[in-house]
Order: sequence, then structure tokens, then C-alpha cells
Amino acid sequence: MAGGRSRENDPDRRQRIVTATLDVVAEHGVSGTTHRRIAAVAGVPLGSVTYYFATLEELLMAAFTQLAEESSNAFRARLARAEDVAGARDAIIDIIAGSVWAEPRTLLLSYELYAFAARHPLVASVMQGWMNNSRAALEHFFDPLTSRALDALVEGIGIHNSIDPQPLDRQAIAAIVHRIAGAESQAG
Amino acid sequence: MAGGRSRENDPDRRQRIVTATLDVVAEHGVSGTTHRRIAAVAGVPLGSVTYYFATLEELLMAAFTQLAEESSNAFRARLARAEDVAGARDAIIDIIAGSVWAEPRTLLLSYELYAFAARHPLVASVMQGWMNNSRAALEHFFDPLTSRALDALVEGIGIHNSIDPQPLDRQAIAAIVHRIAGAESQAG
Repeated sequence: MAGGRSRENDPDRRQRIVTATLDVVAEHGVSGTTHRRIAAVAGVPLGSVTYYFATLEELLMAAFTQLAEESSNAFRARLARAEDVAGARDAIIDIIAGSVWAEPRTLLLSYELYAFAARHPLVASVMQGWMNNSRAALEHFFDPLTSRALDALVEGIGIHNSIDPQPLDRQAIAAIVHRIAGAESQAG
Repeated sequence: MAGGRSRENDPDRRQRIVTATLDVVAEHGVSGTTHRRIAAVAGVPLGSVTYYFATLEELLMAAFTQLAEESSNAFRARLARAEDVAGARDAIIDIIAGSVWAEPRTLLLSYELYAFAARHPLVASVMQGWMNNSRAALEHFFDPLTSRALDALVEGIGIHNSIDPQPLDRQAIAAIVHRIAGAESQAG
């Protein structure tokens, strides 16, 4: 326990608590997430968790917001390296084939977020913000409909490939992306 | 409580316990699901739940299997009404636009299943079976790659539309389905 360090000497304590929350959600699920478990994982006194986050809902909002931002940033960073529509298509193929989003921990945390958002409409705004960021990044290259279709494809193939004994390979993913985002799908 | 009815006079008691399990998971999440809560919702004595299902994992397996079968059956039933590829395309558009899968309770239960499957590899077989059934139904009309792409689309648009203040309408969904499942995508 790092309880010996005072708040002033530990400026990223809040950040550590948020990260620890994602660890606890990944291990125990939202319903198994408590201030006490988070304090133990973050290595801070229980009072420190309640100081920053009075309620579990605030904690989960902060944690899921961090999940969405980290995933959005990875998505945007890969797309930002594209110089044209062909490059953007390759980026999406890489994102799906490389499981940039659908890495096991991120997937599991996403399911927890989705379930929590279904029960807490306020938290649905985190999911919406994440979705809007992905679409905005795609709309630099593709028209809105194509962007939404590609974003749905990232979601759907990501989930299915994660449990498939024979996941779609890069060539198959490329074929589907080319059907959706063909020549007529460029941003206007 | 229906504790007065003996096991012999209540042949569908097992079935009622499985259905009650889905109700409890929908309300409390997997981690909040207990034999006691299930007994209360099913209106059976606690001993009756443990008689049929010694462990919570067995109960959740049975409940998630029922979720997958009900959803698969609805999917298959709609596709079975198609007489040709054009009809099958319309069926998929109906399934997505009408939220046949992505009805709020089914979605929430699916997130719970996915999260549970990520932590319990044995339960992943329920998800795989569901996915394989959908693909098999699609492969009556489309080649395997197209079938997998359409199935991923059902998943991805279903999730995204459920939180989108302006969900994709039927016309937009039709445009995407036609891109993926064009003339060259028929079963061989």
C-alpha cells in the first residue's frame, strides 16, 4: 500500500484510481466493483477513492470515459497516417485485422460498458461520444453512410473474430472493406 | 411463492428457472445473479434451483443457451421466408431495421453473455454456436464471406443503432446491405 504518500506528493493519484477501476471491472465486472477493491488495486487508502469519487457511478463514468478516449485515440492515430482514401481503407483493414480495438481486455471492458450504459442512460453518452469520434475520423475520407457502415463493421467483426476459431484473415477483411468503401464512397 | 406445488405437478419448473435466470441477469448483471434471487423470481423454493443446477455456471450456461436459441430461431424464421437472394437481402434489412436481434433486453443480455464468455472459455461455445447458426442460415443464400460480413453487420449496426439518437433508417441499411451482398455474393 502506498498510503504513506500524501495527496500532495501523489499528483496522479486520481489517474491511478481511474486506471485501477478499469482493472477491477475487467476482473470482477461492474457489479463486483467496489471502492474497497479499487483502493486495494490502486494502492491508495479507501478515503482517497471516496475523496475523488463520492459514488461508484462517478468512478465508472470516469473509467469508461478513459476507455473510450484511449480506444478513440488509437483509432484516430492509425487513420491519421492515411494520406488518401486508399490509405484510409488500408487503415481500417489494419484496425480490424490487427484487433486494434478488439484486443481481449478492451473488448471485455466494452461489453461491461455497453451493459452498464443500457442500465444507466447517462453513461450511454460515453458510448455515443466514442462512436461519434470514430465516425468523425472516418468522415475525413468517406461519406457519412460509408463511415457508419465501416464503424459498424469494426464493431461486428471485432466481436465475431474474437470468438471465432477461424477468424477472418486480412485478405477477407480487405474484400469486405472494399465492397463497403468502394470508389463511390469518398467524402464530398 | 409457488412452493406449494410439488416437482411432479410442475413439469416446466426447470424451464421457469432458466427464464428467471435471464430476468435476474437483465436486472442485476451476471455478478449480481444468485440462486436466491432466481428462486424468488421463478417462484420456486431455493432447493429447487440447486436441485436442477448445482452451480451458478450451469445455470448461466443454460440461460445463455436459451437466449442464443431464441435469437437464432427468430433470425432463421425471418430468413426462411425468403425465396431467393433478393428476398434474403430484404430479410437481413428487416432484421437490422426492425431490431429483431437488437431489441433492448436481448442486447443487454448479449453484452452480459459476451462478458461472461470472455471470462469463461466454456461459455464462449454458446456464442460460437449462435454465430454458426446465423451463418448457416445465411449460407443458404450467400457465399461464406458475404454471410460472415452480413452477420457482422447485424451485430455492429444493432449495437450502434441502439445508442444512436439518429439510428440508420431502412433505406440506409438497405444501401449498405446491397453493397456487401451484391450480385456476385450468391451461394455457389
